[in-house]
Amino acid sequence: MNNRITTLFQIKYPVIQAGMVWCSGWKLASAVSNAGGLGIIGAGSMYPEVLKEHLQKCKKATDQPFAVNVPLLYPNIDAVMQIILEEGVKIVFTSAGNPATWTSFLKEKGITVVHVISNSKFALKAEACGVDAIVAEGFEAGGHNGREETTTMCLIPQITKAVKIPVIAAGGIGSGSAMLAAFALGAEAVQIGSAFAVAEESSAHPNFKHKILEAGEGDTRLSMKKVVPVRLLKNSFAEVIAQAEAEGADAEQLKQLLGRARAKLGMFEGNIEEGELEVGQVSALLQEIKPAAKILKDIWQEFLIEKDKISKLEFPA
Amino acid sequence: MNNRITTLFQIKYPVIQAGMVWCSGWKLASAVSNAGGLGIIGAGSMYPEVLKEHLQKCKKATDQPFAVNVPLLYPNIDAVMQIILEEGVKIVFTSAGNPATWTSFLKEKGITVVHVISNSKFALKAEACGVDAIVAEGFEAGGHNGREETTTMCLIPQITKAVKIPVIAAGGIGSGSAMLAAFALGAEAVQIGSAFAVAEESSAHPNFKHKILEAGEGDTRLSMKKVVPVRLLKNSFAEVIAQAEAEGADAEQLKQLLGRARAKLGMFEGNIEEGELEVGQVSALLQEIKPAAKILKDIWQEFLIEKDKISKLEFPA
Repeated sequence: MNNRITTLFQIKYPVIQAGMVWCSGWKLASAVSNAGGLGIIGAGSMYPEVLKEHLQKCKKATDQPFAVNVPLLYPNIDAVMQIILEEGVKIVFTSAGNPATWTSFLKEKGITVVHVISNSKFALKAEACGVDAIVAEGFEAGGHNGREETTTMCLIPQITKAVKIPVIAAGGIGSGSAMLAAFALGAEAVQIGSAFAVAEESSAHPNFKHKILEAGEGDTRLSMKKVVPVRLLKNSFAEVIAQAEAEGADAEQLKQLLGRARAKLGMFEGNIEEGELEVGQVSALLQEIKPAAKILKDIWQEFLIEKDKISKLEFPA
Repeated sequence: MNNRITTLFQIKYPVIQAGMVWCSGWKLASAVSNAGGLGIIGAGSMYPEVLKEHLQKCKKATDQPFAVNVPLLYPNIDAVMQIILEEGVKIVFTSAGNPATWTSFLKEKGITVVHVISNSKFALKAEACGVDAIVAEGFEAGGHNGREETTTMCLIPQITKAVKIPVIAAGGIGSGSAMLAAFALGAEAVQIGSAFAVAEESSAHPNFKHKILEAGEGDTRLSMKKVVPVRLLKNSFAEVIAQAEAEGADAEQLKQLLGRARAKLGMFEGNIEEGELEVGQVSALLQEIKPAAKILKDIWQEFLIEKDKISKLEFPA
């Protein structure tokens, strides 16, 4: 244990696997936790009874700490929180909502709480609500992110300046060098999504994983800003949204085009043209499908090597 | 001299002041060069005869290396290049255009050439054209930047992987910790715009400098994507553009709203509501107007301190 985050979560490496809809069930979370990081079950795409099953399987698959990510704007939150208590979850990451709503409830039960934010205002609010740490997520991250479009490079220094609690950097991090950059900016851990979405243990459909590996620069785009901003991988569906937005479509028209269950269609069922594919800019750097433990190990080894290299740089005072 | 960039330019610190329209004349460029960085005169906002005057004054003000930035899409390029030769400029940064057009012309005259890009495709093209180094500019940068919207965190590793020539990171860098992050990502120098736009020696109007200092998170926005993307500071003019874009305005309508000389009106003449104000996201972190030498020194000291801190972090192997 060597910094505030590894101590807080009782983990070996300051690497957290992001809770991701349709990707991060018990298989991925337990694999990451068994490898010395913090695995997270993404409750956002799970009915309460499905979450219960994943929690039970995760506890059987690992004796290491793991967490659950709960996007607060999803339905069934009361049922989800009840299951979290029943199953004895020790760490909860909340996102996409107001940290005032559930933080004290969870803290009273002895649960460690982390909230995901994308600006200083919400970082301060989360800190005031008593969360133990902050995930600061930059513009380059996949899925839903902030309206300010602040990138990880600019966001992390702002957040570490604003709050006293430890900050976990998210967005654009899929390698040891990017992890080192996040530490240079003041983060005490990183949260990694896209690189784990293509792990062997990710429940993403193989079609989606391969589409991520094929992605190049400029192949994701922050979309649906008039509804809730979300970073989408380019495909037929994303093109329809882009065209509608260029022509001035309003929130109602965009919601109509989105329809229902499109994220599941794309990421879980593998319809990579008509489905909604959420992934970060870092997808352009991802090359292969590997076990989660190997992903973590490769990132960690590169982090140590790059840290050593930068330590040895010599410059005039 | 200690890495490929400091050796290439014969400078003490791997810190380059960005060429910026209406901000970077001979006063700023010579101040940065005298302080041990590389100062750049931004030719983009200068008529050829004005550039000539700035070059002559810059040579009187410093015996250290300095450069000129030439946005290739501006008018009068032939005249600008002629003056660059006449005045014996030794380093030219080209941007906003095709590196094939002028690189060999300049190289034949013994001039060091650097090209600014925002994706690997153009980095490779610039390298093939024979440029000596690349500036890779991320989405968070001020002024005109790339359509792919790739952030510095994601862009630098892509570019350093793509090319063999040294890479200078730009976008989101206004502090020593951000500079260290850029080095962690593989850059060998940084190019800093916004932080030098508020230098005492910057020719930006004081109203613009104070507006930059007041800027908070989310106060800049990448605009005019249907014409040429440009990051604007929020004001009445930017709101008019944002509104028109939300309603689906096309390139022609946006150009009409932009009109003529709006950048000069805002940044040089100080009309901060009706003028076009170009600045990066890092403006939210800038606090005061200082001499350029002090800006450089503060960044450098912080870089060394943060490098030392990160070197001492201890983690399991």
